[in-house]
Amino acid sequence: MWEIELQRQSEISLKRQIYAALRDKILNGKLPAGEALPSTRQLAMALNVSRNTINEAYDMLIAEGYIHSSQGAPSRIADGLQLSPKPNGGMNETDEPAASFLADFRTGQPDLRQFPRYSWQQIAQKKMRDMTADQFGYTGPQGMSELREEISAWLYRSKALAVHPRDIFITAGATHALHVVADLMFQDARELLVEDPCNIHMLQTFINKGYAVRGIPVDREGLRTELLDGRPGSLVYVTPSHQFPLGGILPAFRRAGLIRFARENGSYIVEDDYDSEFRYYGAPVSPLYAMDPERVIYVGTFSKVLFPGLRIGYVVLPAELHNRWRRLRTYTDVQNPPFEQAALAEFLRTRKFDKHIGKMRKVYRERREALLSALKEYFGTGWQPWGDAAGLHLAVDFQDMVFDEPWMKASRQHKIRVTPVDYHCIRKGAHPHKLLFGYGHLEPGEICKGMEVLHQFFEKGL
Amino acid sequence: MWEIELQRQSEISLKRQIYAALRDKILNGKLPAGEALPSTRQLAMALNVSRNTINEAYDMLIAEGYIHSSQGAPSRIADGLQLSPKPNGGMNETDEPAASFLADFRTGQPDLRQFPRYSWQQIAQKKMRDMTADQFGYTGPQGMSELREEISAWLYRSKALAVHPRDIFITAGATHALHVVADLMFQDARELLVEDPCNIHMLQTFINKGYAVRGIPVDREGLRTELLDGRPGSLVYVTPSHQFPLGGILPAFRRAGLIRFARENGSYIVEDDYDSEFRYYGAPVSPLYAMDPERVIYVGTFSKVLFPGLRIGYVVLPAELHNRWRRLRTYTDVQNPPFEQAALAEFLRTRKFDKHIGKMRKVYRERREALLSALKEYFGTGWQPWGDAAGLHLAVDFQDMVFDEPWMKASRQHKIRVTPVDYHCIRKGAHPHKLLFGYGHLEPGEICKGMEVLHQFFEKGL
Repeated sequence: MWEIELQRQSEISLKRQIYAALRDKILNGKLPAGEALPSTRQLAMALNVSRNTINEAYDMLIAEGYIHSSQGAPSRIADGLQLSPKPNGGMNETDEPAASFLADFRTGQPDLRQFPRYSWQQIAQKKMRDMTADQFGYTGPQGMSELREEISAWLYRSKALAVHPRDIFITAGATHALHVVADLMFQDARELLVEDPCNIHMLQTFINKGYAVRGIPVDREGLRTELLDGRPGSLVYVTPSHQFPLGGILPAFRRAGLIRFARENGSYIVEDDYDSEFRYYGAPVSPLYAMDPERVIYVGTFSKVLFPGLRIGYVVLPAELHNRWRRLRTYTDVQNPPFEQAALAEFLRTRKFDKHIGKMRKVYRERREALLSALKEYFGTGWQPWGDAAGLHLAVDFQDMVFDEPWMKASRQHKIRVTPVDYHCIRKGAHPHKLLFGYGHLEPGEICKGMEVLHQFFEKGL
Repeated sequence: MWEIELQRQSEISLKRQIYAALRDKILNGKLPAGEALPSTRQLAMALNVSRNTINEAYDMLIAEGYIHSSQGAPSRIADGLQLSPKPNGGMNETDEPAASFLADFRTGQPDLRQFPRYSWQQIAQKKMRDMTADQFGYTGPQGMSELREEISAWLYRSKALAVHPRDIFITAGATHALHVVADLMFQDARELLVEDPCNIHMLQTFINKGYAVRGIPVDREGLRTELLDGRPGSLVYVTPSHQFPLGGILPAFRRAGLIRFARENGSYIVEDDYDSEFRYYGAPVSPLYAMDPERVIYVGTFSKVLFPGLRIGYVVLPAELHNRWRRLRTYTDVQNPPFEQAALAEFLRTRKFDKHIGKMRKVYRERREALLSALKEYFGTGWQPWGDAAGLHLAVDFQDMVFDEPWMKASRQHKIRVTPVDYHCIRKGAHPHKLLFGYGHLEPGEICKGMEVLHQFFEKGL
């Protein structure tokens, strides 16, 4: 009954081992209710430990109500503690191993090797040293004012967008921003109008919240705003600067139509500006937000421009939504950590940020050129690029091919990661001939190699 | 018509200023559809800039569809761009200033001045230098395995809790953990059984999700489990190690009853262990999770033990929920940043964490004693402490007083921050005589001073 195996080398104290062993015996019924425990002296001798150790173990059991003690009488097991054995739950271990692909054209991956690690570290260290004790505490749901000021300055110098820092709310990236927006607007909207195709992963954020989704077709220029139609107050989610995935820039005529629709329908527009910093020919596209700061929620992120692990994005929010956002964020995840915010503010302030974008724009432009060359080399004239020369991916139309789910599965089995546009379609089958090539994370040589592998797979067929 | 004021000292390039000025004139109707723009040569002369600058500004307008150009003819404003003036939205600026209180007994505030900044910085810097480029990217929704292993080891050595790292999921703090849990369980549960009183801010997280809330009364020992009653599958949210706010440790008898209820009712139990590291007499309380790892979702946080700005917490999750959690987190906010995770893992591994807890336990115990002394000094025998000697706050019963919302408002006006237990009650009026004193962030002198101010306020009456 009292055999307890003690591990004397363990990091767990002996009293805790004894406590845990007795507790388990009580819970599984080996020590029934009312049973007397041995005296501390007896058990100390039996287990070859000090009497004090047993005393402490018993005290823990008393404090948590497993046993009762009364002066001069033995301690006894309390009533009603026994639990029937646990039913077996199936183990379900699915830490997926990072697969190694022969061709990996996945989208949304910046090149992490090019990031100026050293200067970021210097800045992060300095800012951490300078931080006040208060900044280690709760500092509010809107984010660090220093960072909001720098984002405001940057939006102005890079996109001529005049935004007051009070309208900027820091988030833990774009997905998090959309998640909070989805919560924020749900009561009023309940329906989401969205480009079709769109980023199907971002869409999932809204679907999880319970939105009804209505896809509006996209063409070479982006959302076909003339087809906009929805319940009053429905939320609109768009990527006007660089449509994902097809790459169009929404022309001014449609922008005006979109704003007009939102005003008439009582809708807010969520503008997801996920990669417009990288435009290779011509100036950056001006955000839709500039056309109506009271209707548009602008979502920006640093995941693509700097690195995803940073987990910082932001929204520019119409004044009417400020208080609701603050309340909601407080009960969602409170706030961002301060360290990344302070480092990013300094990275922006010292213009290291602008310099990095300038450098990466060149790097990514070369890769885009390498992708186009490789397509030409392996597929001749049997393909057509879609969209603007921007961002980290390219949609390509192969007129004679059909890319659907079976094709995608087969390609994965051949260690090829390239996504059919169809994967991102709400209504399947509208863009059957197109593939998406992410190239930001690939060196020109890797792009060429990947294209060769893909070409072989095309030749072989399914 | 063509007057454009250029700011030649501005950070915004001249081409962008010209572009923005023309765009605004188009959108507000000053430049109507079909209107011809001046030639680039004319405008360059008028504005005294190079012709190339005008060319680039026009190119931007063309790319975004504001104007059309055709070889040899003047560029013209596109159709359908004019927007009616925006309706005025009310500005709503509410950045609340940090109020300065004469007595500030708010709860849940650790002492940030005691944190070992220097050694944390050293560790953070080293870990950042050692990080691989991959770790700057997307590293998965479960959190860094290094950190999960250290948390597992720490749970074992401090609470004799055997948890496999694969069952640990890193979160951005406890609020975030509860937010994701609320999402995760909503389809199955829809009703929340919760201690009454409970932490009303944490409860808000579930209310925002749409849960129906049913409060179960609490007494000196914690949740009165014999009153548990709810819809099949309802979720149960408890603080068994140190009931918030009343401070009881749930006795074993009730723990067993709670587990039994959950099994019979098909419920999961959310165990929020927000501050049990700080127990001043006796060993740490053993988590409920140990009694049934398939029914209990254990929520831990480092906000109180280290500092809130860290934004790291974790859940220990039944295997059945792993995959759903991963999917959900991916579409909620993707993951935590890597830097804090790596630093915390090292802080745990080197036992600086254990050392800090040991030190703070002494500090907080002294403050608790100072609080009890100050209560005795100013209020004699007219009060009774509630709950276990643990955590960062104390519930105190003043038999002859009534603390309700009007009292709370009046005390705030007198620059006193102390919360009536009633504030955290779901059914108001069940604990009218109790106040909550947070003392973790206060030096003994500040506690004494605060108590004097509170006493004066008591004497004066409302």
